[in-house]
Order: sequence, then C-alpha cells, then structure tokens
Amino acid sequence: MSEGTTKEEMLKKASKPAIEAMRLHPFYQGKIEISLKCCVRDFNDFAIWYTPGVAKPCLEINANPDLAFTHTNKANAVAVVSNGTRVLGLGDIGAQASMPVMEGKACLMETLTGLSGIPILLNTKDPDAIVEAVVNIAPTFSAIQLEDISAPRCFDIETRIQERVDIPVMHDDQHGTACVVTAALLNISKLAARSLDSCRFGQIGLGAAGLAICRMLMYFTGKPVQGADIDTAALDRLAKFGGAPSTLTDIMRNCDVIIATTGAPGLIKPEMVQKGQIILALSNPHPEIEPEAALAAGAAYAADGKSVNNVLGFPGIFRGAVDADVPRITQDMLLAAARAIAAAAPPGEIVPNPLDREMHKKVARAVARVALEQGLNRDDLTGYFD
Amino acid sequence: MSEGTTKEEMLKKASKPAIEAMRLHPFYQGKIEISLKCCVRDFNDFAIWYTPGVAKPCLEINANPDLAFTHTNKANAVAVVSNGTRVLGLGDIGAQASMPVMEGKACLMETLTGLSGIPILLNTKDPDAIVEAVVNIAPTFSAIQLEDISAPRCFDIETRIQERVDIPVMHDDQHGTACVVTAALLNISKLAARSLDSCRFGQIGLGAAGLAICRMLMYFTGKPVQGADIDTAALDRLAKFGGAPSTLTDIMRNCDVIIATTGAPGLIKPEMVQKGQIILALSNPHPEIEPEAALAAGAAYAADGKSVNNVLGFPGIFRGAVDADVPRITQDMLLAAARAIAAAAPPGEIVPNPLDREMHKKVARAVARVALEQGLNRDDLTGYFD
Repeated sequence: MSEGTTKEEMLKKASKPAIEAMRLHPFYQGKIEISLKCCVRDFNDFAIWYTPGVAKPCLEINANPDLAFTHTNKANAVAVVSNGTRVLGLGDIGAQASMPVMEGKACLMETLTGLSGIPILLNTKDPDAIVEAVVNIAPTFSAIQLEDISAPRCFDIETRIQERVDIPVMHDDQHGTACVVTAALLNISKLAARSLDSCRFGQIGLGAAGLAICRMLMYFTGKPVQGADIDTAALDRLAKFGGAPSTLTDIMRNCDVIIATTGAPGLIKPEMVQKGQIILALSNPHPEIEPEAALAAGAAYAADGKSVNNVLGFPGIFRGAVDADVPRITQDMLLAAARAIAAAAPPGEIVPNPLDREMHKKVARAVARVALEQGLNRDDLTGYFD
Repeated sequence: MSEGTTKEEMLKKASKPAIEAMRLHPFYQGKIEISLKCCVRDFNDFAIWYTPGVAKPCLEINANPDLAFTHTNKANAVAVVSNGTRVLGLGDIGAQASMPVMEGKACLMETLTGLSGIPILLNTKDPDAIVEAVVNIAPTFSAIQLEDISAPRCFDIETRIQERVDIPVMHDDQHGTACVVTAALLNISKLAARSLDSCRFGQIGLGAAGLAICRMLMYFTGKPVQGADIDTAALDRLAKFGGAPSTLTDIMRNCDVIIATTGAPGLIKPEMVQKGQIILALSNPHPEIEPEAALAAGAAYAADGKSVNNVLGFPGIFRGAVDADVPRITQDMLLAAARAIAAAAPPGEIVPNPLDREMHKKVARAVARVALEQGLNRDDLTGYFD
C-alpha cells in the first residue's frame, strides 16, 4: 500500500479525534513541560538548590556516579529518542514532525507510571551519528527508549548503543511490540484452547516488529520460528538468530500460529487460511486479512492490530527496569512483562485496558523481579515488592 | 589556587546550605520532572493525544515545520547542555556530576520565567562530538544554553553549533556573564559618578567570561579594551576581536575600569591600585583583591563576584529570545538585556534581586524588542508588549 493512501485513510478514520487534536494541541502548546519538585522562594532556597549548596551533591556524584540516582531526577528520566523515519503509519515524516508522538509517549509514561519521558528528536538518518549522539547524551538518563526508527538501521543502532552505555536501551517498535504480541498470544492460546508449546509459529514480515516477535517466540518456545519477507537481507537476519527462512505460502500451509506485520493489507487471502489456525494480522490501519474473513475461512482465532498496542508494554517495562537500575533489558524481563500483561486481561479478552495503572505497576514489578533473579538489579529493591 | 583548595574552601563556606542540599536533594530526588499539560482519563483522551488523533498535528508539522512551535512544547523548551568540564568553582567534575547544577539552571528557568529547561549531559570532551550531538538534537528545542564547558574549546563549539542550527545558541559563561557584568558597570558608573564613555577598560583573564566581557564592552563603547592573560593564545583571540593585548601591570597602571576573572585570588596587590579606579574582582569564591582592600588603596568603587550572578541574565534572555523566536542572540539583544537588568536595580545597588520575577520579564521584553527592531523575530509578537 502506498504511503499516501495510508495517510489519507488514517486521517479519514481518525477524523473526530484529529479535529480535537488540532484544537487541543495548540491550546496547550503540546502535552508536557518541566515542572519543579522543589520551590525557590528566597535566598535560603536559592543557596540550597543552586550556589553554593549545590556544590556538595555535585562533588558526591563526582566521587560516586551512582549517587546521580539519589540526588537528581536521573533515576526517573527516560529519553524518548526518534529521528522520525517511521512514525505510526505515517512513514518518514522527519524528526521535527515526530514531536507530537514523542510527547505522547512521554505523556503516557508520566500518567501511567510517573516516569519523566524526555523527547529527544534526532535530525539525522546516519546510523553512526545517531549512535554517537545517543551515547554522548546517555548520562542524562536512566534508560533510553528508541522510537520510530526505520528498519534495518534500527537493529544495528540499538545493539551498538547498548554496547556502549550502562543503562537499558530498548527499541520499542521491536521489543515492546514483541512483548505485547506475546502477551496477546498467551491469552489467545487459552481462548482457542491450544497449547503454544505444540504450535508451529510463522511470522510474515521481518521488519523491526517482525524480527523481534520471532526472537521472543523462539526464546519462549525454544523452537525455530518460520519467517517470510520480500527482502532477503531480512531472511538472513532471521537465520542469524536461529529462525527458519520460509515463504508466505509455506507459512500459511504449515503453521498453527501466524503473525503478520507487513504493512500490506489483504496479503493473506481467505483461501490460504487453514482450519484451526490462529492469525494475528497486525498491520495498521488495514490488516493483512480482516479477522471476520479469517474466521469465516476456518481460523480458530483471528485479530487485527487495533488491540495490540505498545502502550500496554513500554511504560511498565521501563518503570521496572529503571526502578531496578538494570544495565540492560533481557528477554526474560520482556517475557515476564508479557506474562504480567496477559494475566491482567479481563476474562475473555486477549489484552488488558492499556490505561489500567495497576496493570503497569504489575508489569514493572515483574520486570524488577526478573532483574533480581538474574542479579542485574543495581538498586537493592528493598521494599519494592511489598 | 589549586582546585583542591577551592573545593574545600567552597564547602566550608557553604556548610549550612550544603547540609540542607544533602538532605533535600535525596528527599525530592532532584529538582525537576516532566509533568503534563493535558490529561489522559479515557480512550477519548487517548485518541486525541496519542493514536489516531496525534497523526494530524504530526502531518501539519511535516508540511510546515514552524507549526512545531504551535503543537508541541518546543516553543518553551531550552536545552541546558554541559559536559561538566568547568562547573561552578569545582572545575572538571564530569558530565554526570554536573547534573545538580544543570537541574538548578532548569529549575531557575522554570520558576523565574516558565521556560522548560531540559538538562542534557554530554559524556565527551571532543569538540566535534559535542557539536555533532547538539546539532543533531536541536530540533527538540527552541534554544540551546551551553553551560560550564571549559575554555578555549567553548568558543569554537558555540560558533560551530550556531552556524548549523536556526535557533539561538548561547554559552552562558561567556555572554550571560558579560551581560550581567555590563549591567553592574552601568550602575557602578552612576554610583562612582564616572561616565563609561570616557573610561579606559582593562580585562584581566581572557577565559570564557573575560573574552566575552571584552567583546561586549567593545561593542558598547566602540573602543578597544585592554586584556591580559598568561596564555598567549587568549591574547591572540582578543586581538582577533579588536581588543588590545596588554599586561596586568599596564592595565593596573592605565585603566579606569578593571575587571578580573582569573581564578587567581590575591592577584591584584593593593599597591597596584590607582586612585579612582573601578575594580570588579569577580573570581569566586576568592576575588583577585578584596573590595575592602581595593577601596582602602584608593579605588572609587570595588566589588567581588558575589553580586554578579548569571541568574540575573539567562532566564530573561532566553525567555525573550524564545518568545520572539529569533535564530540567534545578538550583541544588541544582550546589551538591551544588560540595560534592563541595570534599570531594575534598587537605588544604591548595582544589580537587582535575581529572584525578582518582574525583572526577568523586563529583560525578556527588552530582548524581544531588539529582535523586532532588528527584524530577527519569527514570531510576530502581537500583544507581547501590552
């Protein structure tokens, strides 16, 4: 599908919220701002929060960098970094134009978990420049969320940054999505009365989300996942991670669970569907096959991308990672997050309400608990699970 | 003076605020945080501030980047960037340890002018890496405040960044300091009943602050300023800007107004002082000559650095520059700011109370008015001066 069609369709569908968005964004001039935890009423306050008092916490941090977590908001601050090359269904709209979405992520982080999400727009598509900029600004934050950076450069960028900083780096479009998809699958397997252990998995589309879904499902099941993509480099990447390069036809013929993240609406024809298959056609706003059509063609369960929203994952994942002060987010942490999300879904639903604050707290606790089990927590988490 | 002595002395002098600072920084875990201008109560709000509604302001900004100032907090956001190489009187304490000071600047920006100051710590001393990182993150902000970056690299860094971004970049330790010193001099000339037009100016110490003071005084008076420094490269820089390289002895012998920013306490001996001189010995915490000693030796007016605080300048300067949406901050804007600061001082004082909110508002208005006169305002400032 051409990008133009996506944009038009998206705006048409979104007309009412879009009208409100265009009224309210200028009214508030955006969604977030800096506010103060302290007050500066007089010279006594000034002397405490600025000179000369501030010299003391500075020197304490100089002697022990960990004290930045004690004396500053670093312990609460997550960079929300994007160069705007793959924003929502809008494609490459540039760094500046991605600000409303990055403020949106920051807004959700704050309202759902109390984290200070700080948008950082990167005016470059050069992977080296992205890596250098993020590595250089890293001391400001206790975690880095990469957002809406296009594949394939996103893979390498995430890995290279993580290798050079001692705070967690997560490309949400990869691992956040994989976490939420896994959560949905855990509940779908119950609803469809199929054990995931016995299922063959097929992933159609090996972009940022697709490859990460394969990696998480392989880690979860211990078995290879079949993957298809029109790009052979994407198939090579899958093989490198232990997956099985395959084709659309083969996957539709042989797999029990099919996840599609191709951006190609209607790619899965009803005649390809096998009886009893579980089909998640996740491309927004138009899925690879409409759930109704998949069910009519014999699928045991079918869903589109509307319910599988990243907001279910990233706020709690980052809250837990930051609270435990981990150096990186592991697959086990993401899997624990997926289980916590799945467990919070109401009976009969595949995912919980993404605005359920208690759910995000449970996800954070689940991530921190794995950190403790894996010995990756640098905060001792005393009282955290009480 | 060795850095060790400075630190010890500083902490000794600052003992009471330092004790409070060490109690309160951990209590609040820093000074600033992200808060929301909007609320996300339900899916209606979610659809407005996030998907699908947010797509519309994104596309509007994509079509017209100026609309980022309308739809996001960019119009209010100032990066407070430091690599921690020259923090307060503490020297090179590193990026991480500079966070309490950068949060302090952000805190003052917010409380005095409502700007969202956003600390960005840069974990590098490499000028190229600093320039690239700041240029790349620039779309996030409407202005960039460089802070506590050591000379001489700060000169080049500021110029190179400003050449590549279309928002104002100001190294506060240079131009903010120069602005506040000029403001103080304007009032001192009244108190000492000397016209600055007829004065010969001497600047001792040509670091970040010293060179900027020379440049501003030369711009203001139209005459060369004599400058002294132990570093010949610093003298060359002064000459490049039209100043007159000189020596401590010559300056003390020939100048009417002497400003010292050397970091060398006691450098100016009482026997060097000429009758009727105006002497600002600004090094903190120990001036080049104690004001009492300078006055006893015949100076017409003497002050140390305690009253000449940058907080008098930067909040209002940035508020005005950002409100007018200027591409850069000119010497005329800084001079107008200096005049506004000077005019707000109570009778008999050389500077106003830095916590006087009305003063900062006047500074902002003064900067914006010059922007309008120079045709550098990209915001039309309708109603701004009402």
